Amino acid sequence: MQPEPAQNPDTVAGLGEFGFIERITGGRPQPSTTLLGPGDDAAVVAAPDGRVVTSTDVLVEGVHFRLDWSSPEQVGAKAVAVNVADVAAMGAVPTGLLVGLACPPTLTAEIADRMTEGMWQEASRAGVGVVGGDVVSAGSIVISVTALGSLQGREPVTRSGARVGDVVAVRGRLGWSAAGLAVLSRGFRSPGTVVGAHRCPQPPYQAGPEAALAGATAMIDVSDGLLADLGHIAVSSSVAIDVWAERMEVHQRLVDVASALGSDPLHWVLTGGEDHALAATFPSAAALPPGWRVVGTVKEGSGVTVNGRAYERPVGWEHWR
Amino acid sequence: MQPEPAQNPDTVAGLGEFGFIERITGGRPQPSTTLLGPGDDAAVVAAPDGRVVTSTDVLVEGVHFRLDWSSPEQVGAKAVAVNVADVAAMGAVPTGLLVGLACPPTLTAEIADRMTEGMWQEASRAGVGVVGGDVVSAGSIVISVTALGSLQGREPVTRSGARVGDVVAVRGRLGWSAAGLAVLSRGFRSPGTVVGAHRCPQPPYQAGPEAALAGATAMIDVSDGLLADLGHIAVSSSVAIDVWAERMEVHQRLVDVASALGSDPLHWVLTGGEDHALAATFPSAAALPPGWRVVGTVKEGSGVTVNGRAYERPVGWEHWR
Repeated sequence: MQPEPAQNPDTVAGLGEFGFIERITGGRPQPSTTLLGPGDDAAVVAAPDGRVVTSTDVLVEGVHFRLDWSSPEQVGAKAVAVNVADVAAMGAVPTGLLVGLACPPTLTAEIADRMTEGMWQEASRAGVGVVGGDVVSAGSIVISVTALGSLQGREPVTRSGARVGDVVAVRGRLGWSAAGLAVLSRGFRSPGTVVGAHRCPQPPYQAGPEAALAGATAMIDVSDGLLADLGHIAVSSSVAIDVWAERMEVHQRLVDVASALGSDPLHWVLTGGEDHALAATFPSAAALPPGWRVVGTVKEGSGVTVNGRAYERPVGWEHWR
Repeated sequence: MQPEPAQNPDTVAGLGEFGFIERITGGRPQPSTTLLGPGDDAAVVAAPDGRVVTSTDVLVEGVHFRLDWSSPEQVGAKAVAVNVADVAAMGAVPTGLLVGLACPPTLTAEIADRMTEGMWQEASRAGVGVVGGDVVSAGSIVISVTALGSLQGREPVTRSGARVGDVVAVRGRLGWSAAGLAVLSRGFRSPGTVVGAHRCPQPPYQAGPEAALAGATAMIDVSDGLLADLGHIAVSSSVAIDVWAERMEVHQRLVDVASALGSDPLHWVLTGGEDHALAATFPSAAALPPGWRVVGTVKEGSGVTVNGRAYERPVGWEHWR
């Protein structure tokens, strides 16, 4: 509420608000969907079919990431990835990102630049640009990203369309982030594949629109854990879902890590969050797009079971619970 | 990164993440532009002319608001108001809001509910709904709001269209928030009108589209202070702007408060931020919509002057500077 004195030029305070915004958005190539990019009161993004898909996620230092566990690039990339995955889970392609960044004035410009670089790298991987944002000072780092997307004329694939007799399928990695978290929590830094998976997910963005085209009846981004997120589909669709444990892909790397730590790799796969794979239901006659793996079926009733029985261990987790 | 134990049911931690989200979005009426509301991976909002205007602002406790100075309702309303004002400044009408809320798990449910109520009250005043969001735990309260809007077929009114010979006009209150901040900073709580203006701005949302219809060539939301924000138009449009001090409205209430505090009310009007009035340029022959007040002119050159001379005191402020 009061101006603060100019500070060290190597910090974001030294860059100044407008200087920092320029570092985030200046000189970056924007896709054709960006009709008016950063620099005005608001941006303008194309919404070719007259609708826009939109979602917001907030990442907090110490809660969603730790800068001693992840590089600034990985933190920036993760903030983008978790949001674009939500858009993909509706069957949409991303068209724009807005970034709200709160951080201490003492954050070094180097870390801020690297975080920004990670955001743009992941945005580029998703074919989208950062069209606007805000940077403010705060006691710790809070990154809020809003993703916009286009359904390209299709109906959104919601959580509520699963029908009895549909198959349940997944696309993308499951359990890897949980394995990486388990490794990091014990003070280890390797194996790099699972640790990297925790530091930044690799959602299969294009699989969302592909599933929509193939007739997916319901879809969700697996952020809380497969069983928990299938539970959201079951509730919204008023159906039961049974998962076949033997159909789940348990990668040898997860088996090895679990063995070393005395953990259960299947538990990571069934309940681990933050991988941002996609889970969807399809009519049983549908031809699934490449990479999708059938892991269960939709039945009458309610709730989620594994091999027909209740899963005994906690599934997923809520913030604060 | 780890589940936390259930806590006091009177706190947001006690509500749980999904319970809290339900409190924010459940049972609220949504306007017709909300095609798919909260509850799925993403929302779907109408973009009738094939484009969407979008802007993000972040408010941080202790930086942008203080809960001992403002009610939770005022904080919530302010978070919405500053964002919708950005959309209005493009000449657009708001069509949807997303809210990212980071807050301590110990925040009482009562304060959270009142903040939410303030958001919805202001959203309702703007004719828009909260279509989605995210709530996470953090050390202090950080509110990130993204506003979406529709240009209704018009071109966006940017900062870069001002032409030599245009008039400069303003709509909405200026200097009131600065006066309120001065009052609060000295430990007073009255007069309520100026204190209330600081606690929550009252942007003239509809004046944005009205100005666009009337042919505004450039427009900006006055968040940093009139001279600072006209400076942004001057730079973007490659013009100079001269403000006529005697044309500025200096309300008697500001004169009285300034007199009591030994301050200069015109300085508040020219440089005070956070009122979120609109400033625009119009062709000199344009018929200005109701409520707009001509306060200056666009000239050749660069920079912003008052009565043809440089303004000697600091104008506006940057975050961290």
